Amino acid sequence: MDYKIKDIKLAEQGRKQIEWAEMHMPALMSVRKELKERQSLKGVRISAVLHVTKETAALVRTLKEAGAEVALAGSNPLSTQDDVAAALVEDGIKVFAWKGESEEDYYSNIKEILKYEPNIVMDDGGDLHAYIHEKCQSLKIIGGTEETTTGVIRLKAMEESKVLKYPVIAVNNAFTKYLFDNRIGTGQSAIDGILRATNILIAGKVAVVVGYGWVGRGIATRLRGMGARVIVVEASPLRALEAVMDGFDVMPMSKAAEVGEIFVTATGNINVISKEHILKMKNGAVLANAGHFNVEIDVKGLKEIAKSVRNIRPYLDEYELPNGNKVYLLADGRLVNLAAAEGHPSEVMDLSFSNQALSVEYIYNNRDKLEIKVYNVPQEIDEKVALLKLKGMGIEIEQMTEEQKEYMKQWKYGT
Amino acid sequence: MDYKIKDIKLAEQGRKQIEWAEMHMPALMSVRKELKERQSLKGVRISAVLHVTKETAALVRTLKEAGAEVALAGSNPLSTQDDVAAALVEDGIKVFAWKGESEEDYYSNIKEILKYEPNIVMDDGGDLHAYIHEKCQSLKIIGGTEETTTGVIRLKAMEESKVLKYPVIAVNNAFTKYLFDNRIGTGQSAIDGILRATNILIAGKVAVVVGYGWVGRGIATRLRGMGARVIVVEASPLRALEAVMDGFDVMPMSKAAEVGEIFVTATGNINVISKEHILKMKNGAVLANAGHFNVEIDVKGLKEIAKSVRNIRPYLDEYELPNGNKVYLLADGRLVNLAAAEGHPSEVMDLSFSNQALSVEYIYNNRDKLEIKVYNVPQEIDEKVALLKLKGMGIEIEQMTEEQKEYMKQWKYGT
Amino acid sequence: MDYKIKDIKLAEQGRKQIEWAEMHMPALMSVRKELKERQSLKGVRISAVLHVTKETAALVRTLKEAGAEVALAGSNPLSTQDDVAAALVEDGIKVFAWKGESEEDYYSNIKEILKYEPNIVMDDGGDLHAYIHEKCQSLKIIGGTEETTTGVIRLKAMEESKVLKYPVIAVNNAFTKYLFDNRIGTGQSAIDGILRATNILIAGKVAVVVGYGWVGRGIATRLRGMGARVIVVEASPLRALEAVMDGFDVMPMSKAAEVGEIFVTATGNINVISKEHILKMKNGAVLANAGHFNVEIDVKGLKEIAKSVRNIRPYLDEYELPNGNKVYLLADGRLVNLAAAEGHPSEVMDLSFSNQALSVEYIYNNRDKLEIKVYNVPQEIDEKVALLKLKGMGIEIEQMTEEQKEYMKQWKYGT
Amino acid sequence: MDYKIKDIKLAEQGRKQIEWAEMHMPALMSVRKELKERQSLKGVRISAVLHVTKETAALVRTLKEAGAEVALAGSNPLSTQDDVAAALVEDGIKVFAWKGESEEDYYSNIKEILKYEPNIVMDDGGDLHAYIHEKCQSLKIIGGTEETTTGVIRLKAMEESKVLKYPVIAVNNAFTKYLFDNRIGTGQSAIDGILRATNILIAGKVAVVVGYGWVGRGIATRLRGMGARVIVVEASPLRALEAVMDGFDVMPMSKAAEVGEIFVTATGNINVISKEHILKMKNGAVLANAGHFNVEIDVKGLKEIAKSVRNIRPYLDEYELPNGNKVYLLADGRLVNLAAAEGHPSEVMDLSFSNQALSVEYIYNNRDKLEIKVYNVPQEIDEKVALLKLKGMGIEIEQMTEEQKEYMKQWKYGT
Repeated sequence: MDYKIKDIKLAEQGRKQIEWAEMHMPALMSVRKELKERQSLKGVRISAVLHVTKETAALVRTLKEAGAEVALAGSNPLSTQDDVAAALVEDGIKVFAWKGESEEDYYSNIKEILKYEPNIVMDDGGDLHAYIHEKCQSLKIIGGTEETTTGVIRLKAMEESKVLKYPVIAVNNAFTKYLFDNRIGTGQSAIDGILRATNILIAGKVAVVVGYGWVGRGIATRLRGMGARVIVVEASPLRALEAVMDGFDVMPMSKAAEVGEIFVTATGNINVISKEHILKMKNGAVLANAGHFNVEIDVKGLKEIAKSVRNIRPYLDEYELPNGNKVYLLADGRLVNLAAAEGHPSEVMDLSFSNQALSVEYIYNNRDKLEIKVYNVPQEIDEKVALLKLKGMGIEIEQMTEEQKEYMKQWKYGT
Repeated sequence: MDYKIKDIKLAEQGRKQIEWAEMHMPALMSVRKELKERQSLKGVRISAVLHVTKETAALVRTLKEAGAEVALAGSNPLSTQDDVAAALVEDGIKVFAWKGESEEDYYSNIKEILKYEPNIVMDDGGDLHAYIHEKCQSLKIIGGTEETTTGVIRLKAMEESKVLKYPVIAVNNAFTKYLFDNRIGTGQSAIDGILRATNILIAGKVAVVVGYGWVGRGIATRLRGMGARVIVVEASPLRALEAVMDGFDVMPMSKAAEVGEIFVTATGNINVISKEHILKMKNGAVLANAGHFNVEIDVKGLKEIAKSVRNIRPYLDEYELPNGNKVYLLADGRLVNLAAAEGHPSEVMDLSFSNQALSVEYIYNNRDKLEIKVYNVPQEIDEKVALLKLKGMGIEIEQMTEEQKEYMKQWKYGT
Repeated sequence: MDYKIKDIKLAEQGRKQIEWAEMHMPALMSVRKELKERQSLKGVRISAVLHVTKETAALVRTLKEAGAEVALAGSNPLSTQDDVAAALVEDGIKVFAWKGESEEDYYSNIKEILKYEPNIVMDDGGDLHAYIHEKCQSLKIIGGTEETTTGVIRLKAMEESKVLKYPVIAVNNAFTKYLFDNRIGTGQSAIDGILRATNILIAGKVAVVVGYGWVGRGIATRLRGMGARVIVVEASPLRALEAVMDGFDVMPMSKAAEVGEIFVTATGNINVISKEHILKMKNGAVLANAGHFNVEIDVKGLKEIAKSVRNIRPYLDEYELPNGNKVYLLADGRLVNLAAAEGHPSEVMDLSFSNQALSVEYIYNNRDKLEIKVYNVPQEIDEKVALLKLKGMGIEIEQMTEEQKEYMKQWKYGT
Repeated sequence: MDYKIKDIKLAEQGRKQIEWAEMHMPALMSVRKELKERQSLKGVRISAVLHVTKETAALVRTLKEAGAEVALAGSNPLSTQDDVAAALVEDGIKVFAWKGESEEDYYSNIKEILKYEPNIVMDDGGDLHAYIHEKCQSLKIIGGTEETTTGVIRLKAMEESKVLKYPVIAVNNAFTKYLFDNRIGTGQSAIDGILRATNILIAGKVAVVVGYGWVGRGIATRLRGMGARVIVVEASPLRALEAVMDGFDVMPMSKAAEVGEIFVTATGNINVISKEHILKMKNGAVLANAGHFNVEIDVKGLKEIAKSVRNIRPYLDEYELPNGNKVYLLADGRLVNLAAAEGHPSEVMDLSFSNQALSVEYIYNNRDKLEIKVYNVPQEIDEKVALLKLKGMGIEIEQMTEEQKEYMKQWKYGT
């Protein structure tokens, strides 16, 4: 069978979700219209590992309308929306994903979508690219895309180690991606996930944000916007200084652990909240991760030291520590915005996925010219997406005069 | 039978919810300890119409531990948490409430809790007080409390019309209530309700907040904190000027209707969003109400003009207008923070409900002295609650020196 | 001679300043037009102790155009703008004030303006009222106004002690005064004073605001808006809790002293920064006062313990402490916004002074009806000022429908 | 004579200013200590065109202590602090600068400092580099530095046109420069300049920020922090979208002109506020420029159309337009933060100038290796400056564990 999902009967509900998403994705709808007219992906086989959400549905439906055949697996065991998966199957997409799949299922689903011998692959986190490079070297891949910071770091490492096998466009590096998806999207949805999982009051709480990259500063800003007293933990002196100048307290994790009430990790690094940190925390501390992988909080270590564990509400587990304190882990340390909430709002994915769709078309159109390396999204695509978005939002921007364009090119004017 | 709820088997889940709430209500837990020791409500019968949430559970459990017998009905057809109701029944509270009760059920449940012939009544909105005054004049009520602005306005009107039958403490008027519950609590939970119902991006949207009272300014602040461009609609020149100085755009609803993308009402008034306003709105406009009653948006008028209505997601209905535009109504125009989210976070209710518990004790202790009027919460209770809360949060405040106390009393010092 | 000022030749520069102020005071200009037409203060003698600024000029010119004779003394030894004083003298106002007058001069100037046997007195701080009550009991005063919180506290104490001799309108208590003048006006001008005196970067600094009344929260908000990490010190549990929920750190002064880099006092109380606190401070700490009197920082104590003092820039003195640290006192502990900057912007004084002008007219018109007590500004004046201001700013507000007005009056509607 | 300044007798006041600056420049003081020990600029001749402020004094004194001989001219006719210039002359720096110099003086002063036959040149705006390339090609320059965005754009154009004659380090491109100097420094000092020049209330005003680069977003953020309603005008779709998502209104200048009350330009481009825009403005509009050159507002055009011009206060000129409206131009359209206030606070220049000092040393040490091109500041210098700064602020940051460093290098971990 050409799909493996939870329940095809969920399709109608999924369809309404997708319509709701597409209403909030005006840029992608403009791109869809263009690609459909051009039929520029006619017959192209695309296999994608993406979070199976209503917004991803809007993307793969766009690729399909452009003529492609698409197979889709989930990029995270907890992020699949089963009703959306069902609706996509009805639309003719080959979906292999369900919420709560095991790690074994996860890799088995990747294997399934690779059976279709894709020309182009799309990934979110880098697992698909890694899997292909390790296990499916015989596939003839024209090129691929990658959605996340984490995935791009992995691909760049592969490029440097000369093991990369096909060109990849780092969608993550698009201005319209990383400035919005990471900062604006995760900023809101991480708050949303924390609220849905806990319903705690954020105002007046001491919140600790670990990492002040784009995701971290998005979360720190939103937590402040909700009234929290925010501490930033950061290892880069440049970013740490920026956090201070943005008005945040900055300190090492060992100190922040003692005063924090809500902790959110967004570093891309491992064990940034360690067992030792957890043992210093106040009774009632809430721990959430907003980074791609569930390695930022040492969940394994926490489970080892816990005297008891019990589930309080969906995505909220209570760990009783040897010192008698209780700490509360959200979504088992997986990315809280996808697991406990619904991931990025459609409006944000509109940008990333317009870049994705146009990048896939670009790869296919330039398949004979591209070198085997990690490319950034071409600037003309990036700017086009921004303009389509602004237009969709009904916002008009300034136009430079000829005199101004000329001025920006020269250098001899003075004081 | 001494209760009428959805399903007693939900009690265990309800119990965990209540524990979670009580963990975040340190002030009320201190009050509980005191009242329990004093047994100051020994044998007092209390009937209460309150939102049946995990926080209300913490309150009525406190009253019970102080010796009272408590009967509880819900104050809103959509706000009852059925698992909490079940746990309360197991705790010996007489609960008559379930999520989704009809208006007929609502009044029938009020009737049920009045059968216990309460000495003291507690209300949230004023319906219970109104019902007693209209239909149960034979009851011997020592006094009552009222939680909301709306309810207090109604009771003050009753006081002025000389129809009030017993003293009422306006818990709503406690500093620790209206400044926190209305502004901080509703500020967060209204955002939460909008996010859960829609998952739309708030950043960059034009949000219109109708009413700049405590609730309205809480919501406006949080919407701005999430990145919205916020417009305030307000009929009071004093509040309108304050909104402008707080950096918000201010305009009449007829103009705001044309540019808004998210609308939230918080006025306590009727039809502040009318049919005429809705017909001016952009395609995709989202309408939510954060005021106590579902009269602020003209839902009836909207239903009359709509060409079609369909439910998209829980608490999100799409109305297709004669002009072809679609608008999206949340929670059928009922208060979005209770219907689509979980109401105020426990930390906020901690303040209101500590005031409630201490006010009930105060009424009972002073039953021979109180006149038949609407009282404010005594200042010593208000300040005590604030101090218990700060202590529970681990925050130490400044202490005035004797010299300073003396200085504040005199007036002869000069330049 | 009917005036005592620095230099009459400064009048032309003063006149331009006054024009600039009046351009930003649309509400007062509307009031002036009305009062002039009514000539409602024809022949009334008014003596006023007010900060002699361009905005006060706009007020006294308004009183004069309404027919009054006005004598004016400064309310603070450092706040007089000498050019404005000169322009006022040319306009026929009896001005006794100059920048840098001694305490002796200050009282001597008060004596001068009382020689004109005023019918109505206007004060800013309460010194004039106190002086009249102590030394000039023979004067026949119809009534007075008071601009500040401090002055109102003093007058209320006089009222309670039954020593008050004439009715006073507490302009400070007007909604359009205390919410804007204290919070918005001082919020900005305190920042302005600190910047002019020091030119230090506020972003990233730890700023300690002592007092979270209207002035304190205005300053705390603006410091945060400039990027500071803000700590609030407050003795009231209610206000302290509010500060926490607004996202500020709260702690006692003894702890804040150790971590702060900029300190601003706004309590109305004495020695809120004591010698002991100063000795705990970091090298380089900056101390400013935004309260009415120069008693909030223990300047006398500081001078006693200092090893040396030297002036660095205008309004910035360096004190070397016994422990080798240096602290920097602004404007000798006097109110920093008036001494080191130009006081409230005209737009803010527009509100206070429209209330002042209309209150003086109200006192005179109601001279036979008023009791000897401290009155609030009548609500109709307060709302009128707000409306005139909004109109002047080009802002239109919502108008309630008849249905809405009716609804706000009744109480029988329900769920 | 080896200097040309306003008045040597101002030296003592200048010295106190410099001490005050150096107290707030802990990073540069650490760099000074290092360079002095190394004497790494022993005998090097440096000619610099920089704003002659107390912070620049701290820089050139550092270079001198490192062994260099320094000649200094001002980089803007209005930005020289005459007392600082005097103190520097006493310190043995060859200063040719005074406040209010003419354009002719400006170039004559540049000529003077080039007479010393510099080995290294430092510039702020690119005029010095341009002058050398056009008129002094015989000079043997080892290399140079450039402080501003504008200057770097000019130098990059020279590099591309193959006319660049020596290597230049673009200090502006240091992370610790452009993120702090442009955004944090100009953000604050532009507000400061506007306040000093006008003393208007910012809260409630409609402020229009033209340009959303680093300077523009700093100003927009601070204006919002002071309570303004902020509109952004931007020609880049990417930046415009970012502004929207940051919660600002975005529109073309032609529309913003009609609603704005305060206008601040920060584009680096010409005539972004044109005559046509000015004629659309409201009566009372305030115009300020925060970009490097005085070309952003069409001052010439404004002067042509004005019916009359008069100076109101220092740096504030009133222009009466043919339509009867008055607009107010600050500092004649020159950069408002330097002309009407004191430029960047010392704390910000601490970062830029630590980069400057270390970059000059780097150029000299690597004089045999550097190619003729525009270099970025080496990352190790950038990070060092950030660390010295944090240390000087008493802030400790997180340290990565070995495990974490290792993790950041690899790519094979998965879900």
